[in-house]
Amino acid sequence: MPINTIILGASGYTGTEILRFALRHPAIEIVGLSADTHAGKNMADVFPHLYGCDLPLLQKIDELSFDNVQLVFCALPHGTTQQVIAGLRRDKPAIKIIDLSADFRLADLAQYQHWNGTPHQAPDIQPQAVYGLSEIYRQEIANSMLVANPGCYTTAAQLPLIPLLQAGMIAADDIIIDAKSGVTGAGRGAKQAMLYSEIAENFSAYGLEGHRHSAEMSEQLNHFAKTQVSFHFAPHLVPMKRGIFATIHAKLAPNQDVATLRQALRDYYASSAFVHVYDADTPAPKTGDVLGSNQCRIALYPSQIDGRVTILSVIDNLVKGASGQAIQNFNLMFGYEETLGLENLPIFP
Amino acid sequence: MPINTIILGASGYTGTEILRFALRHPAIEIVGLSADTHAGKNMADVFPHLYGCDLPLLQKIDELSFDNVQLVFCALPHGTTQQVIAGLRRDKPAIKIIDLSADFRLADLAQYQHWNGTPHQAPDIQPQAVYGLSEIYRQEIANSMLVANPGCYTTAAQLPLIPLLQAGMIAADDIIIDAKSGVTGAGRGAKQAMLYSEIAENFSAYGLEGHRHSAEMSEQLNHFAKTQVSFHFAPHLVPMKRGIFATIHAKLAPNQDVATLRQALRDYYASSAFVHVYDADTPAPKTGDVLGSNQCRIALYPSQIDGRVTILSVIDNLVKGASGQAIQNFNLMFGYEETLGLENLPIFP
Amino acid sequence: MPINTIILGASGYTGTEILRFALRHPAIEIVGLSADTHAGKNMADVFPHLYGCDLPLLQKIDELSFDNVQLVFCALPHGTTQQVIAGLRRDKPAIKIIDLSADFRLADLAQYQHWNGTPHQAPDIQPQAVYGLSEIYRQEIANSMLVANPGCYTTAAQLPLIPLLQAGMIAADDIIIDAKSGVTGAGRGAKQAMLYSEIAENFSAYGLEGHRHSAEMSEQLNHFAKTQVSFHFAPHLVPMKRGIFATIHAKLAPNQDVATLRQALRDYYASSAFVHVYDADTPAPKTGDVLGSNQCRIALYPSQIDGRVTILSVIDNLVKGASGQAIQNFNLMFGYEETLGLENLPIFP
Amino acid sequence: MPINTIILGASGYTGTEILRFALRHPAIEIVGLSADTHAGKNMADVFPHLYGCDLPLLQKIDELSFDNVQLVFCALPHGTTQQVIAGLRRDKPAIKIIDLSADFRLADLAQYQHWNGTPHQAPDIQPQAVYGLSEIYRQEIANSMLVANPGCYTTAAQLPLIPLLQAGMIAADDIIIDAKSGVTGAGRGAKQAMLYSEIAENFSAYGLEGHRHSAEMSEQLNHFAKTQVSFHFAPHLVPMKRGIFATIHAKLAPNQDVATLRQALRDYYASSAFVHVYDADTPAPKTGDVLGSNQCRIALYPSQIDGRVTILSVIDNLVKGASGQAIQNFNLMFGYEETLGLENLPIFP
Repeated sequence: MPINTIILGASGYTGTEILRFALRHPAIEIVGLSADTHAGKNMADVFPHLYGCDLPLLQKIDELSFDNVQLVFCALPHGTTQQVIAGLRRDKPAIKIIDLSADFRLADLAQYQHWNGTPHQAPDIQPQAVYGLSEIYRQEIANSMLVANPGCYTTAAQLPLIPLLQAGMIAADDIIIDAKSGVTGAGRGAKQAMLYSEIAENFSAYGLEGHRHSAEMSEQLNHFAKTQVSFHFAPHLVPMKRGIFATIHAKLAPNQDVATLRQALRDYYASSAFVHVYDADTPAPKTGDVLGSNQCRIALYPSQIDGRVTILSVIDNLVKGASGQAIQNFNLMFGYEETLGLENLPIFP
Repeated sequence: MPINTIILGASGYTGTEILRFALRHPAIEIVGLSADTHAGKNMADVFPHLYGCDLPLLQKIDELSFDNVQLVFCALPHGTTQQVIAGLRRDKPAIKIIDLSADFRLADLAQYQHWNGTPHQAPDIQPQAVYGLSEIYRQEIANSMLVANPGCYTTAAQLPLIPLLQAGMIAADDIIIDAKSGVTGAGRGAKQAMLYSEIAENFSAYGLEGHRHSAEMSEQLNHFAKTQVSFHFAPHLVPMKRGIFATIHAKLAPNQDVATLRQALRDYYASSAFVHVYDADTPAPKTGDVLGSNQCRIALYPSQIDGRVTILSVIDNLVKGASGQAIQNFNLMFGYEETLGLENLPIFP
Repeated sequence: MPINTIILGASGYTGTEILRFALRHPAIEIVGLSADTHAGKNMADVFPHLYGCDLPLLQKIDELSFDNVQLVFCALPHGTTQQVIAGLRRDKPAIKIIDLSADFRLADLAQYQHWNGTPHQAPDIQPQAVYGLSEIYRQEIANSMLVANPGCYTTAAQLPLIPLLQAGMIAADDIIIDAKSGVTGAGRGAKQAMLYSEIAENFSAYGLEGHRHSAEMSEQLNHFAKTQVSFHFAPHLVPMKRGIFATIHAKLAPNQDVATLRQALRDYYASSAFVHVYDADTPAPKTGDVLGSNQCRIALYPSQIDGRVTILSVIDNLVKGASGQAIQNFNLMFGYEETLGLENLPIFP
Repeated sequence: MPINTIILGASGYTGTEILRFALRHPAIEIVGLSADTHAGKNMADVFPHLYGCDLPLLQKIDELSFDNVQLVFCALPHGTTQQVIAGLRRDKPAIKIIDLSADFRLADLAQYQHWNGTPHQAPDIQPQAVYGLSEIYRQEIANSMLVANPGCYTTAAQLPLIPLLQAGMIAADDIIIDAKSGVTGAGRGAKQAMLYSEIAENFSAYGLEGHRHSAEMSEQLNHFAKTQVSFHFAPHLVPMKRGIFATIHAKLAPNQDVATLRQALRDYYASSAFVHVYDADTPAPKTGDVLGSNQCRIALYPSQIDGRVTILSVIDNLVKGASGQAIQNFNLMFGYEETLGLENLPIFP
């Protein structure tokens, strides 16, 4: 008996990437799709790669019927999401929601206001939200009605950092997260800066004055470190479509070494199918190694600076960094095997 | 009861692409992998994206056991393939073979010799080979012990051309096949011309003095047209990894028009899950629309030259043009649903 | 005594590419730059690669002073150009103009109306315009006050076709121009279809129902062939920034052969510094071979179809296909060496 | 009276990039080119973009005549270079040499041996070598017979680091240099890992166990800091051809702030035409902003970690990181304006 599912915001990259998995997922039945500016069209008109798929027409959100719906993936823009979800929670409290926006990721509403410049529009709903970093919050996700799916950068950085900070194996200060992303993270909106002619054969940094993702990371890292974590997050844009590559330069806690950290992470993720912690001999992971899959690959190296460690963490931003993790959370919320529908291998080359 | 399967030449792009499908195919059990220069290694040492997959070690061909093996995918280089397959056919006649090389594609051994400069080394085996263009030779493939999987260019060009020539709807002379390919078609061997620095932001033509694929295409097209077909095949290299885009400029047969041709092709492929013939209103197919999938998408347009038609045919060279079609042929040979294990959607963006 | 020069529409790719040459051209003095939406900014705010260049601020057109100006490069959008130029011709008849838009390329105003849907807005000015294909119209350009710089596709196609049609060496019917372009030809406007995520690793066709460039090509080819030329122009989009690669499939005129055509073209362009006609032994030209330079490279091959010839013609669309040819025309109009300021070599890799 | 010049190793990327500038340099006359495996060919056979250039044939080194030669650019592989240069210094002491290899960059021969595993083969010549970081060693270069041109990574990192360390404005410990490079740095040799199919849409790290460039950087940084500098150098590979992007995470010295550092660097490079230090308002530099030019662009930002600064430094690895800086050093050695022949603007897009 499949789960009747609606995707809100199906015409973005994360929306269509949910469909890539959902249409082949044995427990998901897509019964509605929204896309305001494309309402009335077929998905194949918006995303021709979906030609031939049997899908409902795109509709405006308020034209959708939520009767008999059990799950909503919400891939709407940041900001507009919170009111849509507040309405859903109020009117259809039995529907579970997986939100891919940033709107419900921060428990601290003051932080939300600081980074967004406006107060949160659904402060009463926020406490219901569970942070959807699957491997870290499995139990909470399983019991939740509203999952706030993490960002792509934060997923890549936190999967190695949370266990190490929690165990006190790295110092909570002076963590440098030098992160590199493919451009699908910027979405499908028409922006001059994202044109092929501007991006190809070009590498850049951005968010140098501080990046919204820092707040999300800060809240989680502080929680697990049980102290204020001091880190610098430096995002860069790589001329490629998919992939997050986080190079983390951290300080070892006293009496720790890289081999111990590596083993701790391997133990921590021993039963997590999607997170691979490399042993010392395995060549360093590349973004191309996980492309199209829900995997995260982590490797650790001694730094050339005494007392530091270099940690690499690699994901596909649209999969483990967004839509794949959303499917993983779906599985957790409905009691399926965590890997269901996510078995596909990375596509290389 | 899965089919015990060996892949010969697993360390090339087509070899590993077979694995992407085979490892998730419910009826395939991989029991052996060969790769001469990498013998003794894990596949993940050669292709790190396969890290974590449970696979046999790479071996030299003569170290492999073929006992209880029912199917061999042969992804060896052109030329060396024929002797390996001749040996297998002789020693293990019960094993079915799907060969991805060009060695058994030409029924006319004189043509083989003309294009390769040397006589065929297994002339007695050649007559056993069935040409593996799945949609065209379904029945023959189902009954065959040795399938010669077609080339990528020829798959893209022939899927529209064969039905139209067979029906006499286009002229058998003056067909221009202006084809564009991604660079994975050149394989994984280290060649200066295939370096990123040489290929990126660069577009080129090659094979201007005639290309081996012409012989394969010629034999098939002549067969279905029941006459000598005169065509020009112009291959080009696109700075991208995957994809074949064939732009075919053909002459309409007398009293034919584009709409009639389009309908004829739609009818011809009505029950073929992987071949989509676009109607007149659908925007033209792109290689990115089929990436990673076994689909072929075809569209037809009136030419600006009276009496000509422009046909576009688009595939992923590593999937429908190689490994995906090999899996499709596997399904045909063993009586499975043609789409089994090939259900994944294209990956976009 | 340098020529006081204004660039209208400096904030597009062709505008800034004119500057790349103009700022190093000994006879050009940039005294004004227009860019309506960016008025008041520095060019380096719009194009950071120009940081450190000493340039006038961007202004709205009607804020510019045209006093003491001798030359205007007009890189405005198609359609708005004609009124701007009509005004300039009327008010400042001593100023020479090189227009990079399509507005004055067609002598036949009925054709203009057919392809644009509206009548030409400056029909009295059109007869003053000389078609700016430098190597073909040197004398006329030198004597002109208004040069209509050709399009990129048409430059690539016409450089080989005009001499061959004029000499009657190829047939005037059934010419297939299968052309491939980099994406800078689509300009710098923010369009979803031109995003990196949509273009990279993707190859497509467009303009399948007829393309505006056909009219321009038609008028010129008919003129030189002294008959109605029947051709099909098939443009494609390549995942790269710069380059036009035209593959032309033409019929030899009776008693002609490829070697004769090649020699005729070599003779025709013997004194043209930018056009290189390859001999039979030279490997085929690639777009990367001319990147950043004003060169056109042409090669001819026997077709696999008897009686046909395959012609390759390769340029950088922003240079010989636009801004470089504009500089070349500047040199012709002001009596400088044709190559002045255009001596830079292609940049590879 | 131009300088008679030979390029050894002309068939690599740095060799041909020297030619791009040298052929348009008013004071350089190319009288000889070596390329062992391509001896007897034209450069245009090896690098078709040079078609039409008037150049000597490629020869083996020992076939070249060094009579009347005043300058040799040596672009030979690391390791073989030192013996060739030792021979030249001995036999032709009047010839000035600019070496682009790593062979003479390290004054400390023990360090050379440590990183290369073998003793230096020309220990007596090493003391003659001047480190060719143009802006830092102008005077020494002007008086030198043998200039060891720096590596691309080290040029990008050292241009901001040397003045800041010298002035004591940043701490000498805990400097993290997270650097990203295009793939031309890997040269033109045929390597599987550098194939387009392996690199495109893929981001990776390498040299994680320590990288040869560290020794070169260490020696220079220690010299200017007058202490042992502790840094971590983390190189990454970007799917693009050209460009180095160094993100440097350093600690401010006590009582320093970012604005003071910025001003100090602006002052330091006030008269250096190629080094641009951005003010606080200028958008961050990208590799595409300097492509094809000899520029270095530097920007500084407060870190999210108290007491740290983030420094960006961007160059084209083949120009300021190799061949352009070699031309710049040529100008210094022969008393020409430092910018002569290097005036070309970056090429964008």
